[in-house]
This record gives sequence, structure tokens and C-alpha cells, in this order.
Amino acid sequence: MTPASSPTSRLSINQWSMRSTPCEQFITAVADAGIGSVGLWRQNVAEIGLAKAAALVRDTGLRVSSLCRGGFLTATTPGDRQAALDDNRRAIDEAHELGTGVLVMVVGGLDRGQSITRVRAAIPATIAELAPYAEQAGVRLGLEPMHPMFAADRAVLSTLADALQMAAASGHQSVGVVVDTYHIWWDPQVLESIEAIGRAGRLLSYQVSDWDLPLAADPLLSRGVMGDGYIDFAELTRAVAATGYADDVETEIFNAELWAMPVAEALALVRQRFHALVAAHL
Amino acid sequence: MTPASSPTSRLSINQWSMRSTPCEQFITAVADAGIGSVGLWRQNVAEIGLAKAAALVRDTGLRVSSLCRGGFLTATTPGDRQAALDDNRRAIDEAHELGTGVLVMVVGGLDRGQSITRVRAAIPATIAELAPYAEQAGVRLGLEPMHPMFAADRAVLSTLADALQMAAASGHQSVGVVVDTYHIWWDPQVLESIEAIGRAGRLLSYQVSDWDLPLAADPLLSRGVMGDGYIDFAELTRAVAATGYADDVETEIFNAELWAMPVAEALALVRQRFHALVAAHL
Repeated sequence: MTPASSPTSRLSINQWSMRSTPCEQFITAVADAGIGSVGLWRQNVAEIGLAKAAALVRDTGLRVSSLCRGGFLTATTPGDRQAALDDNRRAIDEAHELGTGVLVMVVGGLDRGQSITRVRAAIPATIAELAPYAEQAGVRLGLEPMHPMFAADRAVLSTLADALQMAAASGHQSVGVVVDTYHIWWDPQVLESIEAIGRAGRLLSYQVSDWDLPLAADPLLSRGVMGDGYIDFAELTRAVAATGYADDVETEIFNAELWAMPVAEALALVRQRFHALVAAHL
Repeated sequence: MTPASSPTSRLSINQWSMRSTPCEQFITAVADAGIGSVGLWRQNVAEIGLAKAAALVRDTGLRVSSLCRGGFLTATTPGDRQAALDDNRRAIDEAHELGTGVLVMVVGGLDRGQSITRVRAAIPATIAELAPYAEQAGVRLGLEPMHPMFAADRAVLSTLADALQMAAASGHQSVGVVVDTYHIWWDPQVLESIEAIGRAGRLLSYQVSDWDLPLAADPLLSRGVMGDGYIDFAELTRAVAATGYADDVETEIFNAELWAMPVAEALALVRQRFHALVAAHL
């Protein structure tokens, strides 16, 4: 991995911003565009095989800013919990092999009838079981608070403040926080939380996409390209930069219109918006 | 208004839980069912006329737990701001005439390109302009934090903690907070926020409906009847009760299935779930 050297060179393209492009072509297209970094997903890597994907990013000279995703730690039966821990260890191995230092963790949702308070309270101990394995592999676990509209089905972790509290409660410095603008832009505590996460040395990844309306039929696909929605990227990016965060900035945009574009054109659009709205404040 | 005397008698039915029933028939149906209280909406009241609606609730002996809604205080031009203030004064008059002490305030959303931080910061001063007028009318202004999925288009106010801060910053004790389970159930600070709002004497209304999935095509209509979704009503209701809150509890359920039921049947279902899941913890 070559360290990023200028604000614009810190752009990373998450594969799901170009989800209609298969993994190998995606990696090649990013490298051909002169962009330095990618965010990868386990299932897409698996399509071409871990060894091949790892070789491809090495050969193209790309950095891998993060691997998505581990987590789903809210299983209720001992068997499901053990299966989740085992799968997370495999995800840590894959992150190591791909040469990224960050595994993004989506903590998991609820069953009807469960108390969200109790489910949340159990997470730090579960993360603590994984952390030593991650540390041996040189991988940090990035807890990603998700937008509260996903609190029931995807992540009971909804705010940066709660993510920092969980990371600290795990007792491991390798556990940190992913700041994704789409999920946290509405939070009235967002600026002080980013500062606190930075001060604690736990800001592992900064991801950007916009909050656009109306919501898509599948709310997961409602993300907009920066500039198309309501998020103030100047304010959030300056807060991240002020912590000393110096790693790549991932554009993670699940958006059907972007997926319908030729990949080179989609990459150019994302890069242009990143340059104007994000890199200018790094 | 007769004060509510037992947990179950504190049930209030918000008109939009029975939205397919016109206002006059709605009020009559609630009274016929032996339920003691209603939450009304300005546009439904307007359909039959304010004087007639006020006479109807007086004649049926119903309490009016709240009037929905004032607010929309985030207008950007002086003209729009003045129009919003004027409309809010009319809403206060209507609340007074209907004999309710609470006007629910939906604070308003954003334009693309605005900073949510700056829009939020301007709200307490605007509320402070209305508060003396409300005080003269014996009406309190209830700031309602809405679910963050509505932060851009309906309410930049997303958490109870922020609502309490805004209410206090208005400088008027008549400004308080509406706790609606649908909007705030996911908040990791929800229990301490309810306690703080109670301690400040600003808990004006407790409203209940469930978070159900999948989201409806119009996310506004995704609310479930208590027990159909993911919310822990025992925990939230106990927190509200612990503050000493002794007023009505409004069931505000925007749900197409409920609207399709005969009104007497819908009222019976809501009352049964209220009794089992909410009143038991009051």
C-alpha cells in the first residue's frame, strides 16, 4: 500500500458504488481511472476467489481502504452466536490477505419481542472475543452506526457516541468506529462525537454518500451521489480532518442510477463530486 | 375535561389512527366506545368547523389530549417565516377553543444546500416568539422529535435530548417535548432523556405506536399497532410513568390496514393492545 499523498488521491471507491460491475472489472476500472483505493465486499471477492482478488489489488498497486463486512453479533442462540464469531474470524483472515487494516462491522438487528437495550448491552463482550484475533492479523474492527431506520433489522447501533462507547467498553484499542455520512448526518451530536472518536484514536474509516429523497422502495438503495441531497459535506469533512484522520475516504453509494451508468462515466462523476465537495475540506 | 382516573382510562385515540373516519363520526365513535380522550388534527377539525368540533367534544364529555399540528418553523424567507408564525398563532387559538393544553409542533425540514446545524440553531428563538401568545391561551407548545428518516423533509429535530435543549433554550417553561415511541425508540439515550424531560417539567405528551417492517412505500404510513413491531413498550412506558406523567396516552397509528377496518373494530383492537402493552406499565 502506498500512502495517499493529496486530498484527491485519498478517494476510495467502494465496490457497491459500482455494484453492476463484477469484481475483477471493477478493480481494473478503478486502477485504469488513476484512482488509488478501493473498498471491497466479501461476497464480491469470493466470486473471483480471495487469492486472485488479493493478487489483483497488489498488481494494480491499489490500496484496499476497508473490507465489508463482519458483524451480525446479536444472534440469540449459542449456536448462531458461535457461527457468527467463526464467520467474523474468516472475515478477519480475508481482510489480512487483501492487505486492508479495517473490517467494517454491521452489528446486527433485533427479533420482535427483544429489548433493544439488552441486545445493545451484550455487544461489547462479543466484540471483545474477536478483538485479539483481529489484532494478531493487523486488522481493526470498525463498528458502523447505521441510520436509525435500520435499527430493527440491521444494526441496533445508531449513533457515533454509542459506537465509541461500545468500542471503549470492548476493552480493546483495535476496536474503532466507521463514520458514514449517510447514516449519521442527522445526529445533533455528530460534530462532538467525531471529535471524541478522533481523540480516542478510534476513527477507522470515513465514508461518504448523500441523503436523497424520496426514499427508494428498498431504503438501502436511497443513497445519493454527494451534492444530490441534503448533507453538509463541508462541515462533516472538516470535523473528520480536524481529528488528524489521514486515511482514504470511501465513496459508498448504493444507487440504481449510478449502477446503470458505464463504469468509467460513474467513476468520473463520483470523482468530480468528491473533489468539489469532500476533498476541498480534507 | 375530566381527569383520567385509571391507566386504561388514560387512552386517547388520535384521529389519524382512524383516518378514514370523518371527524364527526370519529369523535362520536370514540365516545360511544367509552374511551375518554381524542387527539385531533387541524385539517380534520376544519372540515366540520372549529366551533362545531369544540361543541362536539364538550357534549360528548371527551378530553382533547392534543392538537396536531403547529411548527414548520424552518422557513428561510422573512415572508415565509411570518406566515408560519401567523399560522401557529391560529393553531394556538384552535387548541384553546378545543380545550386542549398541548399543541404538537413539527419543527420543519431543510432545503438542499442548507446546513442542518444552522437551521436547528435558529429554532429556539422562533419558538420563543410564539410562547407568550401560547401562554396567554393556556396552551403549551410540544416539540416533537421525529424519526431521523424525516430529518430532511419534516423535522430537523431528531432526538429527545435535542428537543429538551431547544425547549430550554427558548426561555419559556410553556415549551415542552412530545415523546412518540415510533420516532425515538431506537435512541440509545432515550431513557435518560425521558427522565431529564420529566425533571425539567417539560413532558407534555406521550404517544404510542410500533415500529413495524418492511417500511411502507410512503414511510409515513409504516406505523404498527402496539405489539406488531419491535418496540419495547414496557421499558419506555415505565420511564414515562417514573417522571410522574399523569396525562392521557395517545395512540397515533398511521396504518392502512387499521384504516380499512370498521371503526368500532379498529378502536377495540387499539384498546386491547393499549391495555396489555402500555396501560400495564403506567
